[in-house]
Amino acid sequence: MSVGSMQDLFIEELRDLYSAENQITKALPKMAKAATSDNLRQAFEGHLEETNVHVERLEQIFEILGKSSRGKACEGMKGLLTEGAEFIKEIEKGDVLDAGLISAAQRVEHYEMAGYGSVRAYAELLGNSKVVDLLQATLDEEKAADQKLTKISHTVNQQAQRAA
Amino acid sequence: MSVGSMQDLFIEELRDLYSAENQITKALPKMAKAATSDNLRQAFEGHLEETNVHVERLEQIFEILGKSSRGKACEGMKGLLTEGAEFIKEIEKGDVLDAGLISAAQRVEHYEMAGYGSVRAYAELLGNSKVVDLLQATLDEEKAADQKLTKISHTVNQQAQRAA
Repeated sequence: MSVGSMQDLFIEELRDLYSAENQITKALPKMAKAATSDNLRQAFEGHLEETNVHVERLEQIFEILGKSSRGKACEGMKGLLTEGAEFIKEIEKGDVLDAGLISAAQRVEHYEMAGYGSVRAYAELLGNSKVVDLLQATLDEEKAADQKLTKISHTVNQQAQRAA
Repeated sequence: MSVGSMQDLFIEELRDLYSAENQITKALPKMAKAATSDNLRQAFEGHLEETNVHVERLEQIFEILGKSSRGKACEGMKGLLTEGAEFIKEIEKGDVLDAGLISAAQRVEHYEMAGYGSVRAYAELLGNSKVVDLLQATLDEEKAADQKLTKISHTVNQQAQRAA
């Protein structure tokens, strides 16, 4: 699509996030399977359920706006998920891999925090309060997921260090 | 390299950030050139100077640790910078492109916030306070750069919306 207005940019970035969320739903089961810590595995499984809701919220938004959700492949998320997949391939299953998975997952969460922060600001500007609320709900969950990973990392990193 | 310990993961992630920062030094001049807002262009130019310092700090850290800085291409940053480059190609120069550039740049800042957050935590765990201080200094500057972009976006987004 050609982007000539803030409305166009808004749709373009929503499509980017829709592609990103769909990529994440495919990656999280692999990350959960690769995790050793029960807490971490449960965090990935819990976030997969949330991510499915994020996809649905975006679909609701496209319906409200009368636009198709398709048309953009998120290159940023592709690169980020490659990094997590490389760790799974390179590092033996255990505490060090768990630490690496947390680090990779936090890059993913931060991408989404930045992305949803932008589109929420655009929605406010464009005066669509229903869409603002849907985007804010997802943004809050991405921030909470990031904080949960930081909390889990304290235990995981120390275990990985002790095991050395 | 094969990653078997937290020290290995630490080096691997530092190399990832070194690759990321070097990619950013090449992208920022193009983003500054594409910007219309004086504030935004100056923010990109100022952040380029900071990024050169971030590269130097990482080189200092590799010297302290007695390790080479090379060996890892940051796939995550490659994907993120592709997104900014696509905006420059797809969107006509002006306020809407500025809004898109800010959004792309904030994804870059967030990648670095997550990345430096992880390695700073590893450095604390590994008990290297000099390295912690160097990483903290960069982390603080990445956060400040992100906040500055948010501030600039308020004006840029409104101008882009009014121009429609």
